[in-house]
Amino acid sequence: MRSHLDAVLLDIGGTLVDEADPHTPVTALRAVPRPSVPEDLGALRDAGLRLGAVTNTAVLVEADLRALLAPVGLDEPLEVIVTSAEVGVAKPDPRPMEVALERMGLVDRHRVLYVGDRPSDEAAARAAGLHYTDVGGGTVGDAVAAWFEAEAGRSWDEARASVGPLDDRAAAAASARQAQLTKPTGSLGQLEDLSVQLAAIAGVCPPPPPGPATVVVFAADHGVVASGVSSWPREVTAQMVAGLASGAAAVCVLARAEGIEVEVVDVGVATEIPATPRGITTRTVTRGSADLSRGPALRPVEVRAALDVGVDAARRAIERGAAALLTGEMGIGNTTAAAAVIAALTGRRATEVVGRGAGADDATVARKLAAVEAGVARLPPGASAEEVLAEVGGLELAALVGYVVAGAAARVPVVLDGVIAAAAALAAEAAVPGIAAHLVAGHRSAEPGASVALAHLGLQPLLDLSLRLGEGTGAVLALPLLSQSVRVLTEMATFDDLGIA
Amino acid sequence: MRSHLDAVLLDIGGTLVDEADPHTPVTALRAVPRPSVPEDLGALRDAGLRLGAVTNTAVLVEADLRALLAPVGLDEPLEVIVTSAEVGVAKPDPRPMEVALERMGLVDRHRVLYVGDRPSDEAAARAAGLHYTDVGGGTVGDAVAAWFEAEAGRSWDEARASVGPLDDRAAAAASARQAQLTKPTGSLGQLEDLSVQLAAIAGVCPPPPPGPATVVVFAADHGVVASGVSSWPREVTAQMVAGLASGAAAVCVLARAEGIEVEVVDVGVATEIPATPRGITTRTVTRGSADLSRGPALRPVEVRAALDVGVDAARRAIERGAAALLTGEMGIGNTTAAAAVIAALTGRRATEVVGRGAGADDATVARKLAAVEAGVARLPPGASAEEVLAEVGGLELAALVGYVVAGAAARVPVVLDGVIAAAAALAAEAAVPGIAAHLVAGHRSAEPGASVALAHLGLQPLLDLSLRLGEGTGAVLALPLLSQSVRVLTEMATFDDLGIA
Repeated sequence: MRSHLDAVLLDIGGTLVDEADPHTPVTALRAVPRPSVPEDLGALRDAGLRLGAVTNTAVLVEADLRALLAPVGLDEPLEVIVTSAEVGVAKPDPRPMEVALERMGLVDRHRVLYVGDRPSDEAAARAAGLHYTDVGGGTVGDAVAAWFEAEAGRSWDEARASVGPLDDRAAAAASARQAQLTKPTGSLGQLEDLSVQLAAIAGVCPPPPPGPATVVVFAADHGVVASGVSSWPREVTAQMVAGLASGAAAVCVLARAEGIEVEVVDVGVATEIPATPRGITTRTVTRGSADLSRGPALRPVEVRAALDVGVDAARRAIERGAAALLTGEMGIGNTTAAAAVIAALTGRRATEVVGRGAGADDATVARKLAAVEAGVARLPPGASAEEVLAEVGGLELAALVGYVVAGAAARVPVVLDGVIAAAAALAAEAAVPGIAAHLVAGHRSAEPGASVALAHLGLQPLLDLSLRLGEGTGAVLALPLLSQSVRVLTEMATFDDLGIA
Repeated sequence: MRSHLDAVLLDIGGTLVDEADPHTPVTALRAVPRPSVPEDLGALRDAGLRLGAVTNTAVLVEADLRALLAPVGLDEPLEVIVTSAEVGVAKPDPRPMEVALERMGLVDRHRVLYVGDRPSDEAAARAAGLHYTDVGGGTVGDAVAAWFEAEAGRSWDEARASVGPLDDRAAAAASARQAQLTKPTGSLGQLEDLSVQLAAIAGVCPPPPPGPATVVVFAADHGVVASGVSSWPREVTAQMVAGLASGAAAVCVLARAEGIEVEVVDVGVATEIPATPRGITTRTVTRGSADLSRGPALRPVEVRAALDVGVDAARRAIERGAAALLTGEMGIGNTTAAAAVIAALTGRRATEVVGRGAGADDATVARKLAAVEAGVARLPPGASAEEVLAEVGGLELAALVGYVVAGAAARVPVVLDGVIAAAAALAAEAAVPGIAAHLVAGHRSAEPGASVALAHLGLQPLLDLSLRLGEGTGAVLALPLLSQSVRVLTEMATFDDLGIA
């Protein structure tokens, strides 16, 4: 739920507690919680959401309500209670909600949901720019879940619908200019092809420089670790996330040197992340996937929520000025999920795509193979990208799919890192056929599945350094080649310039 | 000769003209040129050398001497004539020579030769820090040639004698540190190996950053072009040198982005170089090699002079602060010479090493093959590096050999560009066995000979982008990987830092 929300604001009468008879004297008021409200609020808090209440009342102030709610345990979960009596206007006027947002320091209204039970609740929420869900006689938990079910995947659906084709004219202009530069045609090999691709992606020749760039490192845990597929315990994900936030992880060191921004997004880390000097972006869909060797890794709604997380991370990076998006990830066990996704989407056998990941021994590799085979066997032929991600994927993997697609939709080049990114690119291609042409493979991971996926996508990696670290390291190492390919096209002299026939 | 000298200063009596009888009245003096002096001075000027005279005389001043030398054509070639009468002291005092250097604006005394015929001439030259050669009754031309024959190869011999072994302790320290960094051991693949190699080269762990870096582009022409081995005319070398000096050539564009210094060194361009806003360094050994398909490409002394040019370019770059040396070259026809050197030093057949270079068609490739076969066939089994370079090499190729060896001698990493650099590295390895371990292969050139040479040297290239441009482009593109490998070793957290067991 943290994937989409920072906070939930709630109405009180009719939502949290039974509506009192309007003729009840104030002194006779008693709070009677509606069904499952204490449990539902507890679950929302456990999911990391902040809670507050905004209610219409003719005479009561916050202290009165807290006194009423305390005996039934509903006072403590609410950070603020704002009443119309205190603000001076009542819903449907949005001001009471705005007061609550201000008191809670919530700046991103798109990440706040209001739960109510009347048309005036919905009108106030809409006017304040908040999301709204109605309990409609049901429970708060069900109302929030219904909203989430409907909302999850909205950004993803928008993004994948807005991916356009490559610009053939810009590509042709770039090819023509390459032929006029003072060098034998084709002598800069893949660097020339890259400049043509970047022109086609941007829709202009020469293409803009691919900088500043951002690498988003999506982090999540994998239930399949319980089946012994990794030589590292699950807790290392959280520890490495702390390392990433501290700036001392490999991708941070490499990115710093190139002036590349690193954002760490928690899509579903299971264990507690040690405190770090710099922040991470919390977008938890759920605290890790289930064991894909035993059943579906994720629910469909979780997949769609994670896809949204990726889309939104790409959009935010582009809003901050990113002219290139690099993929990064961290998640103990994720080479198993990636291998399963690659096997499912290419039809290759587990033995062709499973590798040693972060250093698995033979017994561990055997368990990886078994897990991949079991997971893939459950998928029907022709399963969609979302079905594959749900059955055998992972949260950071799904987020990467959204990230990749949103980058392509914005005509921004996306540089893939290793095998996890390659698996995500396969899923993106399955969801948006032709999108691979918007992607640049940063390097050829040492994992066998990466080569299978890149071949399937028709992508030629820029680097081949036997990297198998992930985090985004290979994408960061490759970025200077994109920049250089653009500079050659932009700055080199033509034969005419030098007077050479 | 311009490889080693900017100017030649000469004594007059006994060197340029017959010694006059000391009792001859001044009014009766007549200049009688010594044998071949007018021709020898003309040849020195044609080689691009500046000329001046420094002479002892009791009473004559420059105007007197010019009046005496004019009738025999020896006035005009001399930029300055400095007499002891004007300076107030006579050789062996160095002051008259210093006056000549000052008037001619010659700052690098190691690039000035004095030609005389007496012990006082030699003493004055030595005191002034100049080189000295004695006519000793012979001609000026022979004296200068004898000096050059003795001098050429001196820097090269010094450099190759001072290449030390790699530092095993620094390498072990780097390997140990890699194992402690927060990543699976070996997961940064070739980047880890590279950091260990850089530590071994520098003799310290972590190694210093490989920057600032310099790419020296050695340019020369090749007589074999007359045999139709290139689709480009010989004149393109000079035109591309102008492009390099103007900063608009590919390597300049790429280097600028990485803050890499570009120096262009003319070792033997045959045709006139168009005027350019920025300078090139003139170190002409001779104006291009001979046609290697018909006979030796170079004389042994020319090879040794070109080796010196490379050594000195490396030394100068390091003096200016270069912490990494990148190889660059420009020379129409040089992939033929490189293929011949590679065939000769690896024992491979011409068909295994000859490629299309800058875009040769089938007929041109057939002529390249024939040229390589003819050249290599003349070499005896077990020919030395210098013999191979003389028979089938080229001036920029020999300069690169010196450059590579001087870099290794200075414990500075040398990044090889394409097939020309790979051929030079083979020659360096033949001259200094084991030196390949000091070298980093920047990329795998599309020329087949490059792969043959790199395999022979045991070098794994960092990039494989089908580049076949040369100039140093592949080395420049690879340099960031060296920098990143050092940063990882220096800046990444260890597992201890993050509290991960």
